[in-house]
Order: sequence, then C-alpha cells, then structure tokens
Amino acid sequence: MDPYVAALKGVLLSMAPQATLVDLSHELPPQDVRSAAIFLAEACRWYPPGTVHLAVVDPGVGSSRLILAGCWDEQLIVAPDNGLVSLVQARRPAARLHQFSNMSLALPRVSGTFHGRDIMAPLAARLALGLDLADVGPPLAAPQMLAWPRAVRRGSQIAGEILWVDHFGNLLTNIEAGQLQGCAAPIVRIGRRRIEGLVKSYDCGPQGEPIALISSQDTLEIALNQGSAAQLLGAKAGDPVVCEL
Amino acid sequence: MDPYVAALKGVLLSMAPQATLVDLSHELPPQDVRSAAIFLAEACRWYPPGTVHLAVVDPGVGSSRLILAGCWDEQLIVAPDNGLVSLVQARRPAARLHQFSNMSLALPRVSGTFHGRDIMAPLAARLALGLDLADVGPPLAAPQMLAWPRAVRRGSQIAGEILWVDHFGNLLTNIEAGQLQGCAAPIVRIGRRRIEGLVKSYDCGPQGEPIALISSQDTLEIALNQGSAAQLLGAKAGDPVVCEL
Amino acid sequence: MDPYVAALKGVLLSMAPQATLVDLSHELPPQDVRSAAIFLAEACRWYPPGTVHLAVVDPGVGSSRLILAGCWDEQLIVAPDNGLVSLVQARRPAARLHQFSNMSLALPRVSGTFHGRDIMAPLAARLALGLDLADVGPPLAAPQMLAWPRAVRRGSQIAGEILWVDHFGNLLTNIEAGQLQGCAAPIVRIGRRRIEGLVKSYDCGPQGEPIALISSQDTLEIALNQGSAAQLLGAKAGDPVVCEL
Repeated sequence: MDPYVAALKGVLLSMAPQATLVDLSHELPPQDVRSAAIFLAEACRWYPPGTVHLAVVDPGVGSSRLILAGCWDEQLIVAPDNGLVSLVQARRPAARLHQFSNMSLALPRVSGTFHGRDIMAPLAARLALGLDLADVGPPLAAPQMLAWPRAVRRGSQIAGEILWVDHFGNLLTNIEAGQLQGCAAPIVRIGRRRIEGLVKSYDCGPQGEPIALISSQDTLEIALNQGSAAQLLGAKAGDPVVCEL
Repeated sequence: MDPYVAALKGVLLSMAPQATLVDLSHELPPQDVRSAAIFLAEACRWYPPGTVHLAVVDPGVGSSRLILAGCWDEQLIVAPDNGLVSLVQARRPAARLHQFSNMSLALPRVSGTFHGRDIMAPLAARLALGLDLADVGPPLAAPQMLAWPRAVRRGSQIAGEILWVDHFGNLLTNIEAGQLQGCAAPIVRIGRRRIEGLVKSYDCGPQGEPIALISSQDTLEIALNQGSAAQLLGAKAGDPVVCEL
Repeated sequence: MDPYVAALKGVLLSMAPQATLVDLSHELPPQDVRSAAIFLAEACRWYPPGTVHLAVVDPGVGSSRLILAGCWDEQLIVAPDNGLVSLVQARRPAARLHQFSNMSLALPRVSGTFHGRDIMAPLAARLALGLDLADVGPPLAAPQMLAWPRAVRRGSQIAGEILWVDHFGNLLTNIEAGQLQGCAAPIVRIGRRRIEGLVKSYDCGPQGEPIALISSQDTLEIALNQGSAAQLLGAKAGDPVVCEL
C-alpha cells in the first residue's frame, strides 16, 4: 500500500507530461540490488533507442553513494551508483557516464530517504525532454560493480551457478549459450540430478523430470514441463550447476 | 522479479511507439489457461473497438500448439491456441480467425521459450499499426476449446458451480442472470447453506450471513457483507451451487 | 486474477481515449478505507494540476453511501463518500465538492456491485474531458470523515502513534516534523525501545539498532538500516510512539 511509486510517477508526469510511462516492475525484493541489476540488464535492451530507464533500488539513499546517469547501447539509465547498473556495464561499458551533482535539476526540497522521487525522477524526466548527460554533473570513470560469478570452463566441464529463479520456478544459470559451443547434448548436473542433452522447449521433456534448455536470455536454463524445477529440486540462486560437453 | 513482461513491453514499444499500452493483469496464476480465459472474456469486452489484446499464458510455448489472431466483437486478440480464447469464443464465435504462420512478422530470432516476446508481441504491435488479419497466416476454422461447465436447468432447479473466487472472497458462479427468469427470490444452496432470495448489493444482508446477488458480470454471485464468503463457506472454484426458482 | 480493474480501464479508455492512464496502486488491502485514504493523500499531491484521481475502495457499493467528485489543491478526485478523501480533506478542505446524482453520466446499465466501473470511471473520464464539477450533481457540504489520530503535545512530550508500516518495514508515525520544532535530538520511545536523536538517512544508524528520522512525507519515521523495523520491534499500525523534546 506504499504511495512511493505513485508519488514518483506524479513527479515524472508533472515535469514531462508528454512522456510515455511504462511500468517495468514494482515487485523486486526490497533492497536487493543484485536482483535489480539482473532485471535491469535483461529488460532495458528491448527498448527503443533513447528510452530513459529509472531504476530505484536504493538502500543507501541519503548516504554518500552517488547517483548516476549514463548511456548504454543508446539506453539512458538513471540509478543510484550502488551496483544496480553493474550487469549492464559488465556486458558492455557505458558510452557515456556522469555522476549527479547539479542540484538545480532536483526538486526544491530533497528528503533524506527518497531520492527516487526528489532527484532521480526529475533527472529522468529532464533527460526524456532532451537534457544532455553532460548537464547532470561531471563524468564518472566507472560505476560501482557487484561481482558477477562467471561460469568457468575447465577441460570439458563448465562450472556455473543459478543466477535467478523465475516465478514459474525455472532456474536461470550464468552458463551462456555461447559457452556450450554448439554442443547439443551436454550433461547437466545440479545437486544429485543428471540431465542429458538439451531440449527445444518446455513440453519436450518426460513429465516429472527436469529438463535443460537454452533460455530466452540465451543462457542455460533448467526447467520442468508444467511444473516448478525450483520446487522439485529444492534449488535456489547461487546453487552450483555443472555442464559437461 | 522476472524481466519477461518488461522485455515484451519493450518489443511492443519498439515496433509501435505511438500505441497506448494498458496493463490488464500480470498476476494470473502461472500456466493456468482456464483462469486466463475467464479473465480475458470478462476484461476485453469493455475496450474500444479495434483494441488489440495480447494474452500470454502459454505453458505449451515452443511445442506444436498454434498461435492465433482473431476478431471477436471488434476486439482483436493475439494468443496461443491453447484454450485461452475459448470463453470469448463460447459466448460469440470469432468474426475472423487466423493462425500465425508468417514468420517475417516475428523477431529475427525466435527463442523456444518466450513466444510472447518473440512472436506475439510483434504481431500485436503490427495489428495495432493496421496489419490485416489475413496477413498473419491462413484462416483457422476454430480455436481450441476448454470445456465450460454450463449451469443446467431441470424442472425448477438450476444446477451450476463456482467458476471463480475473486480476491475479496466473492464466489462467482456459472448461473446466468437470464436463467433466473426474473425470479427475485430463488433459494440458493451451497454446501449445507441455504440462502433465500437475492439482494441488490453487498450491504443488504444480515452481518455474518452469506448473501446471493447478481454480479457485475450478470451471473449469480454469493458474497458476504464486508467479509469473504470463500473463507466463511470454505468454498472454491468447481464447488456445486444449486438454485431453486 | 480479478478482471475488475481491467474492465474499469476499458471504460475509461472507451470514453476518453486520449487520456493518460496511470496506475497508482492495485494492492491496497481489500475494503480498507483507512489505508486507501492515507495512500490517496500522499500520492495525489505530486500530480499536475487538473489530474483526475479515481479511487475505488468501496465496501459499501450499492448501499446509500454517496459518490463524490471534488477539487483539492487543483487535484480532482472521484471516490465513494466513505471516508476515502478524509485525510485529503483534513489537510485542506475541498475548494469544490459535489455529490453524484446525474445518472446520465453513468453507463446505461449500473450494477449493484461495481460502481467503480459503472459510475465512477465514466465520471472520471468525463472530468478528464472537461466536464464541470457542477454537472455531476448538487454541492456536498462536507465528505464523510474518518477520525484521524493526531499526535498531541503535553509539556515536552508528543504522544503519537504508528499510522502505517511500509513494505520495507519502516514505521511511519503521525508525529509531524513541524511538531518537533526543529529539535534535532528528541528521544523517541516505542515499546521498550529508546532511540536518541534523529539521523539524516537510513545508513546513519548503528547496524541492528532502530533509528528515527524525518520521512519523505515530513513525519517522524522509525526505521532500521537495511532491515525491517516492523519485524525487529514487532510493531504495527496503531502502536503508540512517544517523543520527548
């Protein structure tokens, strides 16, 4: 029942009434910057060039953490500099990146607990109206980065882990399709389970058995036809997954 | 925290930037085609003629199930052919109905697990821009249909069931107002309860007692003034309801 | 999975296709007029002048409760007259206030259970299109008011309470920043806990200890750095909070 998002949208529309507002998600786990970083990286790349993405998962609000605005693959992002853009950045570094310092862009009164509404929303609105990134503040060399576990190849084995679990219970790993080198029949191990080969879609597997396939994000995914792999396997983010080519 | 809906919206806006996006619901139970079919039928009929509805509850994604696009009462619907349009169709058959085959309308790369983003969103965007249904693919004789339990009249009794339970705990049945033939004082039986007559609105009943009334979908509804009838009666979808005229 | 909100949006767009629809929240607790009144008051003041707010938490739908439309600080609000606007009104009385009576503004068929769709949405759409409030119905002297507990000063003590708990677990009280008279080091008591002084932001406190600060709504807030104060303190709406200047 929090009115925070509604207030923030009001600020956006007050400053940029012609902007097209799109709700990406308001259901990310509170204060979970890592989940938000994954979400942002997966979502933003589908938007038209010049889209402004406002990402506010900001447990350090009011502290010395910076606020940044940058451009990645023609997508503008406004966010706290707390790791939220680190997966976007890890995939391809920002073409332009600035730290916020120009207080004349913020609301007249800035609270200590809601910079999303008081600083970032006004910034996003002005960028949508054509403000140049250089007017936000001085260049920032690099954003704060979370450590992203990368799947590692050793001989014919790739050692990775579950990056996130979606609401269907599908397990999305950090093993990239490219790392499989076209191998269509890897053996995937998770816990004590052994999954042979990749299928093309969810309905291809034997019922009640976990399957492996390439996800819509081009990564290795473990799923269950019409069921929750997470529940079946008792699996969660961070659990190891090994792939034998 | 899934980025799926956000990605799909990005595809829509990339292709049809002037379209008005409206979120109908992102909270349907996963893989529950029946609930989605009820939702779609109740929601779409309130929209302006020519609205394009994109409905993606698609457990069979990537399988041999078809994708369809059709027109029902001037509402365009894009959906998997898995029963999702079957309540819409049961009420009034499609004026036009085509199955998707024209792959040039899809994204250049189609994943095996997210046709909502890769095929259906591009299709919906193009229909919003004026694409003719005939360009989607060949005509489809009829969509896949789920069986819809209809309330049956025998003598002075109508035997029906609970179709869905809303988030207030109201019980929506499949007994249509028209079947009551203007009878204002039917006796409604559910479990061991007996409800006499219909009231006009939720506040008309004695407190703590279930009431029967005509729902905003013109069906028989069982409710509880300021409370949850589902909780009071331990009732759920599929439970029988009998109505004596 | 309820199709109610989707249906209501369809009515809005059918009547005012050019309007910018903004979702404020669909997650308020069912039938909880008090929560909705707080939400509405906090959200609406951030919107551009002339915005029409449609607020439907309406447990008395179909009863003799009135429907109202009014203007508060250039924000137009359409709502049932059940206390939903009472915090807005308590802060600053309506400049104009009318009760709905002009049935020609509603949908041709008005159900007994969903006036949000059948009366209030059409009303909101027409106000967005320029309808004058006077055409809604006769003036209404004052809306129904819920009692709002105000924090009371006695000597150097201010006795207040928790007004709501946000989804981070922060405790928002009814003690207004203005009542602290610039005192930067009050002692805040909640349950058996004693919090000394105010901090500027969430990260300023010792880890694991509750902190007090001024909220983004300019009220006294009790929080926990990177955690839930509600959980730590077992606190809920209505619990007393005392502040010593």
